[in-house]
Amino acid sequence: MPASPIRKLTPFAEQAKQQGKTVYHLNIGQPDIETPEVMMNAIRRADFKVLAYTQSEGTPSYRAKLAEYYNRAGYNITAEDILVTSGASEAITIAMQTCLDPGDEIIIPEPFYANYNAFAWMSNAVIKPVLSLIENAFALPPVSEFEKLITDKTKALFICNPNNPTGYLYSYEELEELKKLCLKYDLYFFVDEAYREFCYDGNKFHSPMHLEGIEENVIVFDSISKRYSACGARIGCFVTKNKKVLATALKFAQSRLSPGMVDQIAAEAGVETPDSYFEIINKEYTSRRDQLVSSLNRMEGVFCPNPKGAFYVVARFPVDDAEKFCQWMLEEFDYDNQTVMMAPAAGFYSTLGDGVDEIRLAYVLNREDLAKAMICLEKGLLAYPGRKLKGAPSEIVSIH
Amino acid sequence: MPASPIRKLTPFAEQAKQQGKTVYHLNIGQPDIETPEVMMNAIRRADFKVLAYTQSEGTPSYRAKLAEYYNRAGYNITAEDILVTSGASEAITIAMQTCLDPGDEIIIPEPFYANYNAFAWMSNAVIKPVLSLIENAFALPPVSEFEKLITDKTKALFICNPNNPTGYLYSYEELEELKKLCLKYDLYFFVDEAYREFCYDGNKFHSPMHLEGIEENVIVFDSISKRYSACGARIGCFVTKNKKVLATALKFAQSRLSPGMVDQIAAEAGVETPDSYFEIINKEYTSRRDQLVSSLNRMEGVFCPNPKGAFYVVARFPVDDAEKFCQWMLEEFDYDNQTVMMAPAAGFYSTLGDGVDEIRLAYVLNREDLAKAMICLEKGLLAYPGRKLKGAPSEIVSIH
Ligand SMILES: Cc1ncc(COP(=O)(O)O)c(C=O)c1O
Ligand SMILES: Cc1ncc(COP(=O)(O)O)c(C=O)c1O
Repeated sequence: MPASPIRKLTPFAEQAKQQGKTVYHLNIGQPDIETPEVMMNAIRRADFKVLAYTQSEGTPSYRAKLAEYYNRAGYNITAEDILVTSGASEAITIAMQTCLDPGDEIIIPEPFYANYNAFAWMSNAVIKPVLSLIENAFALPPVSEFEKLITDKTKALFICNPNNPTGYLYSYEELEELKKLCLKYDLYFFVDEAYREFCYDGNKFHSPMHLEGIEENVIVFDSISKRYSACGARIGCFVTKNKKVLATALKFAQSRLSPGMVDQIAAEAGVETPDSYFEIINKEYTSRRDQLVSSLNRMEGVFCPNPKGAFYVVARFPVDDAEKFCQWMLEEFDYDNQTVMMAPAAGFYSTLGDGVDEIRLAYVLNREDLAKAMICLEKGLLAYPGRKLKGAPSEIVSIH
Repeated sequence: MPASPIRKLTPFAEQAKQQGKTVYHLNIGQPDIETPEVMMNAIRRADFKVLAYTQSEGTPSYRAKLAEYYNRAGYNITAEDILVTSGASEAITIAMQTCLDPGDEIIIPEPFYANYNAFAWMSNAVIKPVLSLIENAFALPPVSEFEKLITDKTKALFICNPNNPTGYLYSYEELEELKKLCLKYDLYFFVDEAYREFCYDGNKFHSPMHLEGIEENVIVFDSISKRYSACGARIGCFVTKNKKVLATALKFAQSRLSPGMVDQIAAEAGVETPDSYFEIINKEYTSRRDQLVSSLNRMEGVFCPNPKGAFYVVARFPVDDAEKFCQWMLEEFDYDNQTVMMAPAAGFYSTLGDGVDEIRLAYVLNREDLAKAMICLEKGLLAYPGRKLKGAPSEIVSIH
C-alpha cells in the first residue's frame, strides 16, 4: 500500500512547531476560504429525529439538485446518472473497482494526485504514467505518447482537470484528442473534476461530458470539498451516462450503505451558493496565484509555469533534491522564526527519478501570509547547502 | 461483486406501496429510535467557518472521548489504538485490506452480515463459513469445526457479537475458545461489535478486548449507527492494540483523507449520552423481541430462537422457499391492505442451499405496528401456496 507523499514531512512540521516556529502551510489542499453560509445554515437547521441511512446512491433531492447544477454547466444528465459518494476519493475507488479487473491498466499523465496510486492499489489496477513536462507548463503530452502505452490490458485514460498538482487546465481540443483515442481503443475516459470551479484569466472549463459520441465511456468524479471549501463534509459523486457501469458501481455503494445524511443536506443547500461566492473566490485565488508565481519566478534559478486552474503550482527549484530541501526548511531553517512547509513533487510522479527538483505549492493562504512565506522561502533557498544553480547539474537547464 | 440480498425485494416493496398497500418493514436494520438530543444539539450548534478535513485517523478529541467510552467498558486502551472510520463498513474493509493478502481466508460462522461478502470481495479475501444451527439458537459451532477449515491461507477468525442476523450473544467461554484457536494458529481475531449496547435479560456483553494474552491479534469494528441510532452519521471505528496493523490501516485511511467533520462532532457528543437512554431503549427492544418471538412461535410450523442481543431474529418458516414467500407477501398478498417486508435468510449464508426456509426479521418497529405486522404475517403464511407443514419435506423437522 503506497503511503501519501504529502504526509512524510508531517513529523518535521510538528517538530518545527514545537520549537516555536511559525510554519506556513503551502503543502496541503485544505482551502482557508469559508464554507458558504447556506451550507452552514442548513446544518444548523437540522430538524429531524433520526439520523438515518439515506439511499445508497444518495438522497433523491440532492441528486436532483446536483443534476440541475451539472445541467447549468451543459452536461445534459439526469439525477439517475449520479451516484453520491463519500468524497471524490470514494468515487474514484469505486470506478476503478467497477471498470477494471486485477491487472488492468489506466493511463494517467504524470505528475498526478498521489492518492490515485492508493486507489489503484486497492483495485489491483496498474497505473501507466505519461510524462507531462514542466517546460510545456504541463500541457497534455502528445496522444502518440498515450497510444504507445496501450495494450490489451488498458481499460481507461484518466485526467484531472483542472489538475492537481500542476494547476493545468485542459483545452477543448485536448479533450477531443483524448476522446478519439478512447473511441479508437474502447477505453473509459475518467476525469476528476474536483477543481471544476477554479478556472482563471477568463478561461472556460471543458468536460468530456460536453463531447458528443462518447457518452458511454465518460465517468466524471467530483467533490464539494474544494468547490464549497467543504472538505470535511466528505461528499463527492460519480457521474456517468453508462447505465451498466452505474449499476455495478451501485453495488459497491450499497455494501457501504449510505453517504452521510447531514452532509448531503449541507451539500444540497450548497448548490444554491450564489455566483458571487465563486466570483469573489476566483478573484482571490487569481491574485494569490499571480503573487505566488511572480514571487517564485523572481527567485534565482526557480521556474514556475503560470497555471490556469485549481490552486496549486508545480515549480522547479535550484536544489539537489526537493524532498531534502523541504525537510531541511522544516528541520534546520528559520527566518525570523518562520518557515514554510511544501510538498516535494516526486511523490506525484510514478516514474522514479522524475520531479526530484520540483515542488508543489498550494496557494491556500491569504496574501499577507503568502508574502511572508515567499520571503522565507527565498531566504531558505539562498541558505540551503544543497543549492545548485544553472549549469550544475546540466539537466536542470538542458530540457526544453 | 456480490449484491446485497436485502435489496433484491426492494422493487416488489415499491410496487406494493404504489398499489396503496401499507408495508411493515421488518427487513432492515434502520432503527426507529430517536438519535440522542446531545448529538442533534451538537450538530445544530456547529459554529466553525470552514468545514475542513479532519485528521485521517479522526479528531484527537473524538478519539480521546471514544477511549474513555471503551475504558468504561473495560477495554484498557488509549486514543492511539483507535482509527475513526466511515461506519463499521469502512473499518471492516480496511481491516481486510490491511491484514489479508489476495487469496487469504477468513473463517466466519454463518449466517453472517451479508455485506462481509462484498468487503471480502474488495480485498480478494475468501470467506470460509462455519455453519451455526438454528436448533442451537445459533450458538458458536464447536471450535473443532473452525479448526477443520484452517489452512496456511487462514489469516483471521471473524465474529459479529451480538450477531446480525441471528441476535446471538457470545459468552465469555466461547470467546475464550476462539482465543485459544487464534493463538494456536496465529490468527487475527476480528470482532464486529456494532450491536454492543444491545444485550437483554441481564446478560453481560463480552469482548475479545477483555481477554488476556491476545492483544496483538484482536481487531474490533464498531459503529455509532445502531448505538445512538445514528446510521446516517457514517461514523465507526477500528480498535486494536497492534501498532503495526494500525500503522498500515492508517495508510488506507489517509488515502481517503478524513471521516466527516460534523459527524465526528456529533459522535463525540454522543459519548455523553446518558445511561438512561440505553436503559429505555433496551427495555423497548426487549419487549419488542418478546412480542416478536412469542408471536412467531405461536404460528403453526414457525420456529424462532429467543436471542439475547441486537435487534434481529432468524426464524424458520414452513415454506418451500423463504425468498419466494417474502416476494409473494409483497407481490400477491395483503391483509386489510397491509403486508410485511422481511429479509430471506439465505442471503446471510454463503453455503448455497442453507437457510432456504429461514427469514431474518428486525424489530425496528413500535409494538403497535409490530402487532399488526405479525397478524399480517400469520395470515399470509396460512394463505401462501408454497406452505409446507411438518413432515413434508422431512428435513424441516429432522435436524436437531
Ligand atoms: C485531484 C483530487 N481528487 C480527489 C481528491 C479527493 O477529494 P475528496 O475530499 O472529495 O475525497 C482531491 C483532494 O485533494 C484532489 O485534489
Ligand atoms: C453487523 C453489522 N456490521 C456492520 C454494519 C455496518 O454499519 P455502519 O453503518 O457502521 O457502516 C451493520 C449495519 O447494519 C451491521 O449490521
